[in-house]
Amino acid sequence: MALFITLEGIEGSGKSTQTKLLAQALEKQGASPLVTREPGGSLLGQDLRKILVQGKPGDLSKEAELFLYLADRAQHVDRVIKPALASDKIVLCDRFTDSTLAYQGYARGLDLENLKHLNLQATQGLQPDLSFLLDCPAEVGLKRSHQRLEKELSSESRFEKEDLSFHQKVREGFLKLAQSENQRFVIVDGQKDPELLHQILIQEVQKRLSTKK
Amino acid sequence: MALFITLEGIEGSGKSTQTKLLAQALEKQGASPLVTREPGGSLLGQDLRKILVQGKPGDLSKEAELFLYLADRAQHVDRVIKPALASDKIVLCDRFTDSTLAYQGYARGLDLENLKHLNLQATQGLQPDLSFLLDCPAEVGLKRSHQRLEKELSSESRFEKEDLSFHQKVREGFLKLAQSENQRFVIVDGQKDPELLHQILIQEVQKRLSTKK
Repeated sequence: MALFITLEGIEGSGKSTQTKLLAQALEKQGASPLVTREPGGSLLGQDLRKILVQGKPGDLSKEAELFLYLADRAQHVDRVIKPALASDKIVLCDRFTDSTLAYQGYARGLDLENLKHLNLQATQGLQPDLSFLLDCPAEVGLKRSHQRLEKELSSESRFEKEDLSFHQKVREGFLKLAQSENQRFVIVDGQKDPELLHQILIQEVQKRLSTKK
Repeated sequence: MALFITLEGIEGSGKSTQTKLLAQALEKQGASPLVTREPGGSLLGQDLRKILVQGKPGDLSKEAELFLYLADRAQHVDRVIKPALASDKIVLCDRFTDSTLAYQGYARGLDLENLKHLNLQATQGLQPDLSFLLDCPAEVGLKRSHQRLEKELSSESRFEKEDLSFHQKVREGFLKLAQSENQRFVIVDGQKDPELLHQILIQEVQKRLSTKK
């Protein structure tokens, strides 16, 4: 049964871990969820991801950064997410439209209404059925994210190089978005033990699946 | 003296040749024009150009293609064109906003008013002082373009692989745009001998330079 689920939150909030745990739990139940992410969920996106998450904060103009995210999303929706939903898959997506509103809107100061309008163009109107906000203080998320980058010898640190106040604005933005759309969003505490957190998430997913039946 | 000049037209209409001839003539007069192009006029753009002009026509969704062009333009304007104009340079740019309207609008069918609005966001409102439309029949342009691609062993053929009717729509789109903005545009016959054509272009540039003085 098609269900489009997104996981949102600041760097190091636990999105990737929870996406993996959700996928494993759904697979155990016999589903074959599509696990994907932004940026980078399509073939084109793999090239764009390198540009977007590597390098230095000032490498891209605000508008160039925004349009690259929208290009990544447009291709991802058209070539990956929509076909998967059309063949009745559950789609688990690590970041989606709300990240654009939180990062480019709340944190970088681009106009929110305009961003919503652009998101609609990039997604052809597709919206998630369910979104989790993994909320945690910026200091905690950044610390975890830096540890992961070091451990994985990853150069995907363009956003981690932004200062703390940037990440605080992103967090606050996510909270406002989640509160304003509380039918779609479930806010959870990203500082909870991952296994406990997973229990909350999988229960919410089951609830949505059973109402869809 | 700052002057922003763009050259527009279908594939094989002679834009690159005329851009080069204009640059040489202006250099002879002691100017140091900035010669640039879209896509590909910035460091980011060099990566995006590969994605945009290589491969197959269906590789990118319409919206992904559009947003990639806008990302290329946003970075190009912010990091290359505006700084050059700010230091009083003449900028010669091979393709700009009108190409988006002709290709993504008139040929691919995306909404023109929306494209104009997006162009304004990508350019931060910057518009060319003078634009040349090198007009020629699609058959003629395509033939010349294929010859050039073969000669240069170039793989930049994503648009050349579109069918003739696509290029005819692009041509018609350019003509409509140029006619609707006849203060900014000068329409010339791209089938003329390149040196004769150059004489027309350089005279127009001189005229604009002298009115700016």
